[in-house]
Amino acid sequence: MAVPAAVPARISLVTLGVADLDRSAAFFAALGWHRSSASNEQIVWFKTADSALGLFPYDHLAADVELPVAAHRSGRGFGGITLAINVDTADDVAPALAAAEAAGGRILKPATRADWGGVSGYFADVDGYPWEVAWNPYFPFAPDGHLQLPD
Amino acid sequence: MAVPAAVPARISLVTLGVADLDRSAAFFAALGWHRSSASNEQIVWFKTADSALGLFPYDHLAADVELPVAAHRSGRGFGGITLAINVDTADDVAPALAAAEAAGGRILKPATRADWGGVSGYFADVDGYPWEVAWNPYFPFAPDGHLQLPD
Repeated sequence: MAVPAAVPARISLVTLGVADLDRSAAFFAALGWHRSSASNEQIVWFKTADSALGLFPYDHLAADVELPVAAHRSGRGFGGITLAINVDTADDVAPALAAAEAAGGRILKPATRADWGGVSGYFADVDGYPWEVAWNPYFPFAPDGHLQLPD
Repeated sequence: MAVPAAVPARISLVTLGVADLDRSAAFFAALGWHRSSASNEQIVWFKTADSALGLFPYDHLAADVELPVAAHRSGRGFGGITLAINVDTADDVAPALAAAEAAGGRILKPATRADWGGVSGYFADVDGYPWEVAWNPYFPFAPDGHLQLPD
């Protein structure tokens, strides 16, 4: 048996620090995402085809990481991380952005033909985190929707 | 066949805006992570058991999202998103943190028994993004290391 790597190549969870747990959970539920039974009143988990999504109050998450709460969260500019939902066809991008907006999100960038050969747009979720919706013809999916990056 | 959801439950990609693409790519390579052949001089991709990891220059990523560059990136406090690498046993947490430090990361929080029943610590990667290393006995893995959240 191979010796496991000390730091296995995994992103098991992506956790967003949120202002109002119920409001944020309602947003992802409105997208039709499946809330895991592991959720409780302090943290909410959604299943995805890739990393699991966690929602946790921002201040609690900052305390867990032992990092200071940012002085000016709103309007602080781009936080440096994007999450992408890749879709199956170019024509799926705009409807996904519209559905995210209908659920309470905000479109940051409409569906746009990208110079790398795909179609991409962005919405902000109810906490302002940027989600890309992209069609990328070079990145195929496994049958379960899990993205399969080329080797 | 079921009609696909407008916003499929996927986190296909997690992309980090980085200060120096070569430096950041070297960090994840030093962890033993597999760099995808889809990488080029402008963007680097690493395969994981869950969402794929992208590295892209921060300013370019901000421009792609059409969000302003944050005025004070360093010392701005917690950006609101954590990424977690779950490991197989409680005893795997501390060595993973040590390995991340040896690769050029910085330990934010040592391996700590958590009140939710697991063991958790955090390191910052070379761009300061917080990664949790956690053992969670309630969240099992698929054979490929993909986290399987309870239904």
